[in-house]
Amino acid sequence: MTAPQPADQKFMRMAIDLATGNVLTAAGGPFGAVIVKDGQVVATGVNNVTASNDPTAHAEVTAIRNAAAALGKFELTGCTIYSSCEPCPMCLGAIYWSRIDALYFGSTAQDAADAGFDDSHFYDELRKPVADRAIPALNLMRDEAAESFNAWRNAIARIEY
Amino acid sequence: MTAPQPADQKFMRMAIDLATGNVLTAAGGPFGAVIVKDGQVVATGVNNVTASNDPTAHAEVTAIRNAAAALGKFELTGCTIYSSCEPCPMCLGAIYWSRIDALYFGSTAQDAADAGFDDSHFYDELRKPVADRAIPALNLMRDEAAESFNAWRNAIARIEY
Repeated sequence: MTAPQPADQKFMRMAIDLATGNVLTAAGGPFGAVIVKDGQVVATGVNNVTASNDPTAHAEVTAIRNAAAALGKFELTGCTIYSSCEPCPMCLGAIYWSRIDALYFGSTAQDAADAGFDDSHFYDELRKPVADRAIPALNLMRDEAAESFNAWRNAIARIEY
Repeated sequence: MTAPQPADQKFMRMAIDLATGNVLTAAGGPFGAVIVKDGQVVATGVNNVTASNDPTAHAEVTAIRNAAAALGKFELTGCTIYSSCEPCPMCLGAIYWSRIDALYFGSTAQDAADAGFDDSHFYDELRKPVADRAIPALNLMRDEAAESFNAWRNAIARIEY
């Protein structure tokens, strides 16, 4: 990763301003994200969990959904995301699935924890074996579930992602 | 976690059928999820990534968004999710944020990997320190980013989540 350029700082400033503005307008949590391609802003997102009753409406997920819609593609190759805070596991997973090229983040997961958010705790949970996690999880009917993957393997028209 | 009951098998069967049906109708990937509260189905979801150009539209994320909308709440306390496959990191993060009580899954992350999906690889990535991950990530302007959390701490009307 090359050293940050003035443009990187400009886009991070934008993400931070979105995060702060989201609090000052009482719209949601203190998080903002900006997605950039070829030096241009493709989409932005703010945390909208409480206002929209959507626990997945974090800034990065929202920005990724907006960017994919704007570009008309389910992959964001060639894009960089600027997030006001280190992404939580959900958002980092979304970044991986979106095939974004690079990530800049402002605050850290520990900063988020200090402000009362569970990001750091959830990272600890995901690192544990399934059986040791706080939310109980049980593998059930694995043999039957194989039929869905078999259908996928046999599907001629499948679009891989 | 109590031993699976016939009702648990019924809801898992439903999730598997959603997953297989999603392939047979060429709607998307082989994944389905069902969210249940008090023995009743609150919402379902299927993988809709390619059809909707939304890399976050996995079955569990979609089911969680639908369930939160149906219940008019951003938390799904008291709910159980049945997923045809072990959730990827993004979806497991969404499950944690949603405060779902329990998870049943059919196929495993390894089964998904064997069918060509990156879930297991992404778990490996999330377990690494930030600097060692495949998608380059850089902490930038941490001091400036603190202003968003400071605004949050000072916000009288904040709704925590």
